Amino acid sequence: MSKIVTFGEIMMRLNPEGYLRFKQANKFEVSYAGAEANVAVSLANYGVDTKFVTKLPDNELGQCAINSMRQYGVDVSDIVIGGQRIGVYLVEKGASQRASKVIYDRAYSSIAYASQSDFDWDRIFYNTKWFHFTGITPALGGELPEICMLACKMAKKRGITISCDLNYRSKLWTREKAGQVMSSLMPYVDVCTANESDAFDVFGIKAMRTDIDAGKLDYDAYVSVAKQLVERFHLKMCAITLRGSLSASENNWAGMLYDGVSTYFSKTYNIKIIDRVGGGDSFGGALIYSLYNHHNGQDAIEFAVAASCLKQTIEHDYNFSSVQEVQALVSGNESGRVQR
Amino acid sequence: MSKIVTFGEIMMRLNPEGYLRFKQANKFEVSYAGAEANVAVSLANYGVDTKFVTKLPDNELGQCAINSMRQYGVDVSDIVIGGQRIGVYLVEKGASQRASKVIYDRAYSSIAYASQSDFDWDRIFYNTKWFHFTGITPALGGELPEICMLACKMAKKRGITISCDLNYRSKLWTREKAGQVMSSLMPYVDVCTANESDAFDVFGIKAMRTDIDAGKLDYDAYVSVAKQLVERFHLKMCAITLRGSLSASENNWAGMLYDGVSTYFSKTYNIKIIDRVGGGDSFGGALIYSLYNHHNGQDAIEFAVAASCLKQTIEHDYNFSSVQEVQALVSGNESGRVQR
Amino acid sequence: MSKIVTFGEIMMRLNPEGYLRFKQANKFEVSYAGAEANVAVSLANYGVDTKFVTKLPDNELGQCAINSMRQYGVDVSDIVIGGQRIGVYLVEKGASQRASKVIYDRAYSSIAYASQSDFDWDRIFYNTKWFHFTGITPALGGELPEICMLACKMAKKRGITISCDLNYRSKLWTREKAGQVMSSLMPYVDVCTANESDAFDVFGIKAMRTDIDAGKLDYDAYVSVAKQLVERFHLKMCAITLRGSLSASENNWAGMLYDGVSTYFSKTYNIKIIDRVGGGDSFGGALIYSLYNHHNGQDAIEFAVAASCLKQTIEHDYNFSSVQEVQALVSGNESGRVQR
Amino acid sequence: MSKIVTFGEIMMRLNPEGYLRFKQANKFEVSYAGAEANVAVSLANYGVDTKFVTKLPDNELGQCAINSMRQYGVDVSDIVIGGQRIGVYLVEKGASQRASKVIYDRAYSSIAYASQSDFDWDRIFYNTKWFHFTGITPALGGELPEICMLACKMAKKRGITISCDLNYRSKLWTREKAGQVMSSLMPYVDVCTANESDAFDVFGIKAMRTDIDAGKLDYDAYVSVAKQLVERFHLKMCAITLRGSLSASENNWAGMLYDGVSTYFSKTYNIKIIDRVGGGDSFGGALIYSLYNHHNGQDAIEFAVAASCLKQTIEHDYNFSSVQEVQALVSGNESGRVQR
Amino acid sequence: MSKIVTFGEIMMRLNPEGYLRFKQANKFEVSYAGAEANVAVSLANYGVDTKFVTKLPDNELGQCAINSMRQYGVDVSDIVIGGQRIGVYLVEKGASQRASKVIYDRAYSSIAYASQSDFDWDRIFYNTKWFHFTGITPALGGELPEICMLACKMAKKRGITISCDLNYRSKLWTREKAGQVMSSLMPYVDVCTANESDAFDVFGIKAMRTDIDAGKLDYDAYVSVAKQLVERFHLKMCAITLRGSLSASENNWAGMLYDGVSTYFSKTYNIKIIDRVGGGDSFGGALIYSLYNHHNGQDAIEFAVAASCLKQTIEHDYNFSSVQEVQALVSGNESGRVQR
Amino acid sequence: MSKIVTFGEIMMRLNPEGYLRFKQANKFEVSYAGAEANVAVSLANYGVDTKFVTKLPDNELGQCAINSMRQYGVDVSDIVIGGQRIGVYLVEKGASQRASKVIYDRAYSSIAYASQSDFDWDRIFYNTKWFHFTGITPALGGELPEICMLACKMAKKRGITISCDLNYRSKLWTREKAGQVMSSLMPYVDVCTANESDAFDVFGIKAMRTDIDAGKLDYDAYVSVAKQLVERFHLKMCAITLRGSLSASENNWAGMLYDGVSTYFSKTYNIKIIDRVGGGDSFGGALIYSLYNHHNGQDAIEFAVAASCLKQTIEHDYNFSSVQEVQALVSGNESGRVQR
Repeated sequence: MSKIVTFGEIMMRLNPEGYLRFKQANKFEVSYAGAEANVAVSLANYGVDTKFVTKLPDNELGQCAINSMRQYGVDVSDIVIGGQRIGVYLVEKGASQRASKVIYDRAYSSIAYASQSDFDWDRIFYNTKWFHFTGITPALGGELPEICMLACKMAKKRGITISCDLNYRSKLWTREKAGQVMSSLMPYVDVCTANESDAFDVFGIKAMRTDIDAGKLDYDAYVSVAKQLVERFHLKMCAITLRGSLSASENNWAGMLYDGVSTYFSKTYNIKIIDRVGGGDSFGGALIYSLYNHHNGQDAIEFAVAASCLKQTIEHDYNFSSVQEVQALVSGNESGRVQR
Repeated sequence: MSKIVTFGEIMMRLNPEGYLRFKQANKFEVSYAGAEANVAVSLANYGVDTKFVTKLPDNELGQCAINSMRQYGVDVSDIVIGGQRIGVYLVEKGASQRASKVIYDRAYSSIAYASQSDFDWDRIFYNTKWFHFTGITPALGGELPEICMLACKMAKKRGITISCDLNYRSKLWTREKAGQVMSSLMPYVDVCTANESDAFDVFGIKAMRTDIDAGKLDYDAYVSVAKQLVERFHLKMCAITLRGSLSASENNWAGMLYDGVSTYFSKTYNIKIIDRVGGGDSFGGALIYSLYNHHNGQDAIEFAVAASCLKQTIEHDYNFSSVQEVQALVSGNESGRVQR
Repeated sequence: MSKIVTFGEIMMRLNPEGYLRFKQANKFEVSYAGAEANVAVSLANYGVDTKFVTKLPDNELGQCAINSMRQYGVDVSDIVIGGQRIGVYLVEKGASQRASKVIYDRAYSSIAYASQSDFDWDRIFYNTKWFHFTGITPALGGELPEICMLACKMAKKRGITISCDLNYRSKLWTREKAGQVMSSLMPYVDVCTANESDAFDVFGIKAMRTDIDAGKLDYDAYVSVAKQLVERFHLKMCAITLRGSLSASENNWAGMLYDGVSTYFSKTYNIKIIDRVGGGDSFGGALIYSLYNHHNGQDAIEFAVAASCLKQTIEHDYNFSSVQEVQALVSGNESGRVQR
Repeated sequence: MSKIVTFGEIMMRLNPEGYLRFKQANKFEVSYAGAEANVAVSLANYGVDTKFVTKLPDNELGQCAINSMRQYGVDVSDIVIGGQRIGVYLVEKGASQRASKVIYDRAYSSIAYASQSDFDWDRIFYNTKWFHFTGITPALGGELPEICMLACKMAKKRGITISCDLNYRSKLWTREKAGQVMSSLMPYVDVCTANESDAFDVFGIKAMRTDIDAGKLDYDAYVSVAKQLVERFHLKMCAITLRGSLSASENNWAGMLYDGVSTYFSKTYNIKIIDRVGGGDSFGGALIYSLYNHHNGQDAIEFAVAASCLKQTIEHDYNFSSVQEVQALVSGNESGRVQR
Repeated sequence: MSKIVTFGEIMMRLNPEGYLRFKQANKFEVSYAGAEANVAVSLANYGVDTKFVTKLPDNELGQCAINSMRQYGVDVSDIVIGGQRIGVYLVEKGASQRASKVIYDRAYSSIAYASQSDFDWDRIFYNTKWFHFTGITPALGGELPEICMLACKMAKKRGITISCDLNYRSKLWTREKAGQVMSSLMPYVDVCTANESDAFDVFGIKAMRTDIDAGKLDYDAYVSVAKQLVERFHLKMCAITLRGSLSASENNWAGMLYDGVSTYFSKTYNIKIIDRVGGGDSFGGALIYSLYNHHNGQDAIEFAVAASCLKQTIEHDYNFSSVQEVQALVSGNESGRVQR
Repeated sequence: MSKIVTFGEIMMRLNPEGYLRFKQANKFEVSYAGAEANVAVSLANYGVDTKFVTKLPDNELGQCAINSMRQYGVDVSDIVIGGQRIGVYLVEKGASQRASKVIYDRAYSSIAYASQSDFDWDRIFYNTKWFHFTGITPALGGELPEICMLACKMAKKRGITISCDLNYRSKLWTREKAGQVMSSLMPYVDVCTANESDAFDVFGIKAMRTDIDAGKLDYDAYVSVAKQLVERFHLKMCAITLRGSLSASENNWAGMLYDGVSTYFSKTYNIKIIDRVGGGDSFGGALIYSLYNHHNGQDAIEFAVAASCLKQTIEHDYNFSSVQEVQALVSGNESGRVQR
């Protein structure tokens, strides 16, 4: 009876403790994460019935991934068991001028080799109001572009709202392939989210004159990109995250939302980074929560940006912020005073 | 033969490692702490003979709390053994916009159920020059308001200087109850310390026009509060800590001292926070050390603020700074250069 | 067939986990480090055949030190086995206003009691192009001043370039002794590196008007110091690191190089410190790499400063930065964006 | 739609790492456990729809306890939120001649102060086939004896099978009180489990001539106890665990089942103990699984004993053994050969 | 100038800490291991110049694997860089009746996709006296059977002694395929090692009447197997390890060697297991060491069995025993008295 | 006002975690220990006022050693501060056939270079009833033989009972030197303790026909040794520990006491070893406790052996057993059943 369904990959995440580099590590912290899994956990944390759909191998690691979702209340009853392996990725946390590094070892995963017959969308979408996926899912290859297309069509038929985070990954596919596949899926999408560079990487749409590394944001450019996306694909809404990377330890973070009529810019947070991986997913999860609950445009973007600001102060990918914590930050409490 | 006695609760403190949230933790760091215990350890570290008085249960956890004090040289010979349990509190360390969280599980502790006959103040105060407690001790309820009153009277009779940190805790008692009990104890107090909001919470005395979350300090307001406290209760001295919470990771920190004649403001430190819990207690401990050693007003407040600045760069509640380290900071060495 | 040889001490380094103070620690992280060993690991990481020469005791700790070098590709085939013990040093990491502390327990080490007959410089220098040592090596006492002198003479005879980091350590010898010994060795040196205070401590050469604790740098003063060193000892080059210690958590970091004709100043990095110990050694290692590869003056100083900036974002002494990572930072990528 | 419901307390479990004693610990491992919670996790691991019912406080620790159950697939939808605190217990692992120690800090917990109106047994028992509780639940006091009685009556009315583990805890109630309350509940019970001493402690029924510390088992005595229990309370079945404590590191472990007609004794396992806490609960969980799936008497007791043997080779309270793993051990594979 | 060359796969090994099961782990210990890599480290520890040949991906994990070999003195200069990924395997340590579990995630590794042109056997075998591989290497598929064949032919041509551990892995290939490929390679092999079941799994040669799980050994059966192997493939020597698995925590361990004339049985050790993974490899490494140094048959098998006994008291795959430690055990010192 | 004084060295003890070998360790557990310090902690744990006397350097490590004693209630007020360094020793825990290893790095310690004027025995012995030292103290060299002699004379003069553990360390002195020095001290000693080999190593007194490695004990031999010691040095009592090392993981452990008239043998414990270092010291501490409290001979040896049995089930050197725990074991409770 889950109201929101997300579909994609969940991987085993390994990272050295603290700020150790891979070459120094003799222990890895183990967690489980993936773009759409992260969104599902965010939504479950906010109290929304959420189902995550993927395919995982029939071994303890697959079960651990399932348990990690279930622990936080995500409905895992439609996860398909089979295939060879769970994807793995490794994160080395950067600091100051030293960038974080991610090594992906995700090829040949169960989900990447899933077939259309694995997923019974009729059952999956029972009672569903919202469907979310990201550009990573079709980028995994195999039959996934077709599976995504089928899911979108089935969702559309039921009047389910569809959201998609462009999430371009150059290691997974070329810009050409991405543009072609995503162009075929976007017509089904109602709400599109993206970071500063995704629109250009996938569709060649330029965020003109932004100077992202310097931490300065050109608001007009983002409006221009959002409008182009909305117009080209007849979206209801488009949201863009704006990251100003001052260093691996400090980022500026904001977001904008365009609803076809108005643009809403959030306030900008200066974040002392604990772990920025999963930041965009927590933005997506919180934005969906807001829109699903019919918040207005300004409230929605403020909630999404505050939520994803908090995520980046939390270790690992999942966002363990509650609605109350996010709202307290939205209300202006950035002081970090001890909550006794 | 201890010269300073502090009286109150010591609890078992549990906190997840690093910046993990409670929901992510499968290990807790264990330490032992409490407002008056923290003051005692500060004083012992500075080389003063200090005794801590409390009541602890007859089990390994009570013994561990005793050992943690004894390890740093505090006299534990008058700790009473009995009752049901040691109080527990859990700390989740915040970062950037995410606030630290404290969960208290301190009800039904041995000290909260102590009786007047548990403490032989004649023996406890043998050879004592200074007695310290905080507003938390009577707030624990039961017979503690009466016990504190008795201790104060016994101390007064012996000419012992009495200091009290208002330390208002809304989880323990209401403002009304606090105001009533503390008003009866304050006439015995010589030196009162408080943070920005305690005077208002306990006595309705306002620190007018301060905007603490913005990290800006209105000096006149603090002077006004200190003067009201001194006048109402005929204090010898009143000191107030001034915290500007920029975020959970960065605070401004200063203090003021009013001796009935002059006000002394310390310099302000910008602290990259390691652990701010216990900051106020380390201020109190260092201030008592200074006054006990007859430092002048400006020196005393500078020593107290520098000491408590250093505490906030140290994990857990106890302040492991030496007199030399505090004095080096007072002398202006903020550069953090490696001491080889 | 190693092209670069470094000679000195390698110690066992112990440090509490995270920001714990010595008094709180019940675990120490163990690594192995030393000024010249750190330089050797930097060079090996950059792909240069590098040999490290020292003397280590015939026990597991000596072997662990050897293994730590070998792990990163340093040639350890000329390390001499014998003597009593490996030196030990302990590091307590500071934060904000609290300075880091180093306790040395290095007396009576195998290398400090080495004799001239321990080292067969003919074999050691086979095929060598560059020889590096620091002021710490002769400061260890015993026959080491004579051994360094012999090594320098043997190197000179073969036309090997010699570099020396002044690295004054007041715990090891007096300024007088240092000045006398180093003055006898410097005539053999081609490239000298130093920090802001070494030239004064060792040779009485003043870096006039610099205010290092305030983080401001007086460029003219450094030029003056470098020129005096070059002139007095007929150096080919002299490089000085410029550290502005804002706090234990934040430093400004830059460097200058003087080649007898021109002075080259690097850009200045604002570093959020992870571990600054070994920063100077990583500067030396990177500078040698640059000069060994005939980079021009500006490129060399930029490479050396960027490399040592990255080192200070890495735990323990060794610099695990690759040539590509250093060059990316030199090229201006300070944003710390995730490398996927 | 859960088929099995268990009802009782879940606590936060803290234990020092490895074999450290409480006095040596500065870290505690954190898990969540309780007699009936442990049974629920066992059943969920075997693939049975299982619901756990309790009351937990509205704070992160209560949520963590819920998450720990949910992670392993237990239905937590009828857990009541409210009350003051979660119970805590601390385990110090013994070794060889040194016994394990447990400190309970469970008074004043949310469940101990639950009221009859907290639980809607009609909704809880929807679609339920089996109800399990232990003697600990009514022993917690307050209204719990009445709540247990009500639950038993409601279950009986629906034809739900009821099982109860006597689980006598002398810290919670006297033998007299236990005997009185349990005697009123037992008439509703179909399947009773107990360890060697429970029947005597609760009902004064003697396991004659057993010499448990010597690790020898007197089979006739157990049969006599089981028969007395079955006869007195008209049980369908009674099972008893037989532990021979050779030392804290090594136990013999077996069990017997009496179905009113025949007695079935399992084989005896010699266990090198990893963590014996929760051993009895894992026996109960596995026995319920077997009986719920209509295994015959011998199969049921073998499955229950093998499962609980495996539990004692696993850290913490929960039994993470699968049906396949238990069956492999039942089938005689005790060799521990690596499963690749 | 390495005298012994081993060829095969090195993987990243991940295992939960202590006795935690996969489902409980949020940290993995990281090490690097593989059948032939383990042999190489053993030999390097014994002071023999040893080279390990494999193919590893061009990322930090590949480099970490290289560093792990280099750390212990193995020559890594002929490791080929390329391909997609390093193989991974996960070990869950068993205890008592609970068996250890290994999950392999080794498909698609760089070495499995290596091509014949990757390896320049002329250069690799320069100055080599001994070549070792195991049945795992050709089992990895792709061109590896051909590469192994080529390596064997090149080695034979140079008069290099060839050893092979049968090491049958049912997850990698069928008995049929194994039998076919290994039968083609064995004619080049001089020394063959195997465990109790390999000869049957690969060649259908039966170790008749052995009851390995019961820990009893039928010596005649092993002699029969060894003789069949020697005769069928014209081996110089054949050695078989004899493991009696009493439980996951306790094994009996012995070995036999047949030189075509005589059979030599080692003494049997009762091992309290710390980590048995890599036990067979450490036997192989020690046997090669002995034969390479022309020990006689009895001495060789005693050294090999004692060495591999010690390995199983050491964490992770590599055997960190020295020649002296092995010889002390061979000499009968099993008392484990402290070596001061 | 301490009644028992012990005098000797306290060192920093470092050991890898768990069963890791030195070569695998990147963390060391840190504790503080020494033969006479261990005895002092045992006595303080039993509730006896005990003072430990040593000399420690004026740095954080010296302070940590003091704190470690103070934590458990030992009087540290007569510890002398000065000298160069604290001794260090490293322990690698063995398992099964692999022996534990100890590396000493204790030369040049503050205590080894102490002078006679450092210790004011008049003040130290105020109110003292018992003085304990071991053969390690004079073995440290320098003036320590003379200091020990002085302490013995001063103690004797006051009628203080003197005990000495022979504790021969071949790394510290030769048998000849030991024999000469100890022979001069023994006339002052009332109670001598020793292990199986000490009497021979120090005085050439033979424990004939014992086969210690095989775990068999020849009782007559021990009686003979004890009698020789008592007669030669006019001792009141002599106690010998009897260790049967079955392996590094399992020892048999017993003791005997001879009071000049009768011999008392304790029962023998089979110990699954957690950490055997400090076992002999815990025997000494418990024996002194028993004799100090006038237990009879059989009770004293049983208490001492049971206490030291428990110590060997505890990590690190200190014995954290209480009188009750020891007495429970003496009373025959070896079952290790959970104490709830």
